[in-house]
Amino acid sequence: MKKYTSINDIDNLTSWIEEAKELKENPLKHCALGTKKTLGLLFFNTSLRTRLSTQKAALNLGMDPIVMNVSGDAWGIEFEDGSIMNGSTAEHIKEAAAVVSQYCDMIAVRAFPSLKDKEQDEAEHVLKAFMKYASVPVISMESATEHPLQGFTDAITISENTKKKRPKVVLSWAPHVNALPHAVANSFVQAMQKMDVEFIITNPKGYNLNSAITKETTIEHDQIVALKNADFVYAKNWSSYEDYGKILNTDTAWMLTKEKLGNAKFMHCLPVRRNLVAEDAVLDSNASLVIEQANNRTYAAQLVLKKILENL
Amino acid sequence: MKKYTSINDIDNLTSWIEEAKELKENPLKHCALGTKKTLGLLFFNTSLRTRLSTQKAALNLGMDPIVMNVSGDAWGIEFEDGSIMNGSTAEHIKEAAAVVSQYCDMIAVRAFPSLKDKEQDEAEHVLKAFMKYASVPVISMESATEHPLQGFTDAITISENTKKKRPKVVLSWAPHVNALPHAVANSFVQAMQKMDVEFIITNPKGYNLNSAITKETTIEHDQIVALKNADFVYAKNWSSYEDYGKILNTDTAWMLTKEKLGNAKFMHCLPVRRNLVAEDAVLDSNASLVIEQANNRTYAAQLVLKKILENL
Amino acid sequence: MKKYTSINDIDNLTSWIEEAKELKENPLKHCALGTKKTLGLLFFNTSLRTRLSTQKAALNLGMDPIVMNVSGDAWGIEFEDGSIMNGSTAEHIKEAAAVVSQYCDMIAVRAFPSLKDKEQDEAEHVLKAFMKYASVPVISMESATEHPLQGFTDAITISENTKKKRPKVVLSWAPHVNALPHAVANSFVQAMQKMDVEFIITNPKGYNLNSAITKETTIEHDQIVALKNADFVYAKNWSSYEDYGKILNTDTAWMLTKEKLGNAKFMHCLPVRRNLVAEDAVLDSNASLVIEQANNRTYAAQLVLKKILENL
Repeated sequence: MKKYTSINDIDNLTSWIEEAKELKENPLKHCALGTKKTLGLLFFNTSLRTRLSTQKAALNLGMDPIVMNVSGDAWGIEFEDGSIMNGSTAEHIKEAAAVVSQYCDMIAVRAFPSLKDKEQDEAEHVLKAFMKYASVPVISMESATEHPLQGFTDAITISENTKKKRPKVVLSWAPHVNALPHAVANSFVQAMQKMDVEFIITNPKGYNLNSAITKETTIEHDQIVALKNADFVYAKNWSSYEDYGKILNTDTAWMLTKEKLGNAKFMHCLPVRRNLVAEDAVLDSNASLVIEQANNRTYAAQLVLKKILENL
Repeated sequence: MKKYTSINDIDNLTSWIEEAKELKENPLKHCALGTKKTLGLLFFNTSLRTRLSTQKAALNLGMDPIVMNVSGDAWGIEFEDGSIMNGSTAEHIKEAAAVVSQYCDMIAVRAFPSLKDKEQDEAEHVLKAFMKYASVPVISMESATEHPLQGFTDAITISENTKKKRPKVVLSWAPHVNALPHAVANSFVQAMQKMDVEFIITNPKGYNLNSAITKETTIEHDQIVALKNADFVYAKNWSSYEDYGKILNTDTAWMLTKEKLGNAKFMHCLPVRRNLVAEDAVLDSNASLVIEQANNRTYAAQLVLKKILENL
Repeated sequence: MKKYTSINDIDNLTSWIEEAKELKENPLKHCALGTKKTLGLLFFNTSLRTRLSTQKAALNLGMDPIVMNVSGDAWGIEFEDGSIMNGSTAEHIKEAAAVVSQYCDMIAVRAFPSLKDKEQDEAEHVLKAFMKYASVPVISMESATEHPLQGFTDAITISENTKKKRPKVVLSWAPHVNALPHAVANSFVQAMQKMDVEFIITNPKGYNLNSAITKETTIEHDQIVALKNADFVYAKNWSSYEDYGKILNTDTAWMLTKEKLGNAKFMHCLPVRRNLVAEDAVLDSNASLVIEQANNRTYAAQLVLKKILENL
């Protein structure tokens, strides 16, 4: 594999899930595969799980992770072609990406969207620039529109926890005080579309995700109807896609409660705001899979690193 | 051992000191004990010695240290149970601690006190939350009220440098421009109470430490009287405990001078403000043990990590 | 070798270049030389290439790099002797350097100049303090007046790319919006003075570098004349040395263009501001060596680390 920047980079989700489960059973089986290979982790934004799980995955494979907070450790990077760089940016992505490629055998990048300019965000100008100018494989640790390590993790977690051949999975919009990206939701949708599940999205009007991603997936605006007989409920806030990046709805009635959850398992990518996105009774119950999701982040990342290492 | 958050976690200080000295003689003797084990170092506050010495200790044991500045690298953590998280905190400690436990075989935490709310500081709400919600051993790299890696280091250093069976040790309050925590002083008091030393504390009126910690230890308000015939003098500022977190005294006469030190050895945890806490003539003399104390931080931490590794 | 803080620490540049090329051919040949040795990388300023290439070099030798951003991770350091530390600095360099020496087998430091106080900058008070108080070897990762890892890298790159026995090398001042240090230019000058090249500097009037460094090197104020028949052109901005730290000239006509470059190879230490220092047509052409320079940073650093390791 030469890159991992989208759920679409997974050629066969079923077999990937099985391979990730094998890594989870025996995380150190390939502990020499990455010997003397460096993974550069470049963060344009904060990170807890992604930061730690990707380092752990690299260490399990014997790699040397090198972490860099781009904003704090270095300087402003220019992404525009042809610009006269007499402003605040000190280095062009053409040089930055090519240079990091000299020191790292693969580059993992986190770069959130502006949520102000839909076109620019959808162009994925940061991630795409790294893909264009880096001479080594690039991994997305969450880009403007996708979070493929999370989406793959979620697929693994559902596979591990389902008791049915074809479970019902609901992605339910949740309230939040900040305008959040669509990346986690998008990658979850894409992962579910590749799995043998009954999948439905529920969100308030005005909050439909990009239809180019949701495609034929049913969108139900009545949360109670959508949650009926669910086996897995994934709660997640996102800002409006149509009225791009705006908060149109702060109705706390969309919070996930134990009563609404019923017998379903609860999922969330974390960090989760308690008693806003989901109530304590949900998160503190045995129905919650959020910690196991966090655990699976390691093995999702480890499989991606392994597949790239095998092709270096 | 399942945790190290207090001098009280040391079952036998004498034997711990001997074991630490053995590690110092041969730091790499157990260099494979921690192979493929990760130590997460979480800093809510700045750090130099603790940051470097704990990493060095982990490396000596073959562990992989993963450092994270919580404030800069991630986001605000919520510690209140039941709160509706619609403010500035993005993740509850319940999730944060459980999640970090998925990636690290043990977690070391530094979290200073507010020095504003005595009850909250004494409740050690950050450290205790990690201890409660982490599923792996927790090590304190200085909490609101204790700095047990420093206290153990100080005990090792006194043991190495004493020429007497029962030396006289004085903990002497020192002036400072900022309001400082009680953690270093508290752990030093607790360590001395476990050692065969003649121990006395000297501080201005209004600066007595928590009596639940000082217990029967003599407190002498006349510094000159206290320092008489001392073998070791530990200078350290702390803010008032009684008038909690306040600076009541800025009398520079409490600075430790070469004259006052006499034939005693000088100790300080560092960082030390020269010519405020102690004069240059003290710090630049052969009587100063401060660099050796810093050196011993590695072996204190290494013994703690070793004891925890042996019980994983 | 006991330190590397200047091009003057290179005893024989020709043989160093050959040794560095050998490391580049076989970077892992000495991969166990640094086992269980730590390299402390202390950054008082931001860094991308130096940060990553020095870590990579250390890893290639089996060392454990420990990175610390001094300003963000720790506290203010005092450099004045005898000062009463009742201000904003919390630790004296005497303790800081001695302490870091307890945990690291060598210390690499980046500390830029103020560009306000020529005397203080030329005294190299930060780097010199580390050299004085550290008990382990010190490496400069760019000090107030020199960037010897870059200068050595540049010499390697010219040696690799020259087709002539004695190529013509031009250091050409370039426009910039900020006042920049002289370190890169100074070390490049010193490196060229040790190589068998025809070397000339071109800069506007008022921008002559320190004559104690340029010595007999020709300085030509007419850029077009200087560039004639050049084989290598190194573009770089620096602020005025005479009118210390000032920007006297913003004439964009000094920007390097493809036309001016002619058949020469283009060099720059990076980060480079496109269309200000050099136009896109230069940086995007095959004549540009800037990425190869960045690549050679690893082997320059690796040879320095190797020579120090062999003398520990």
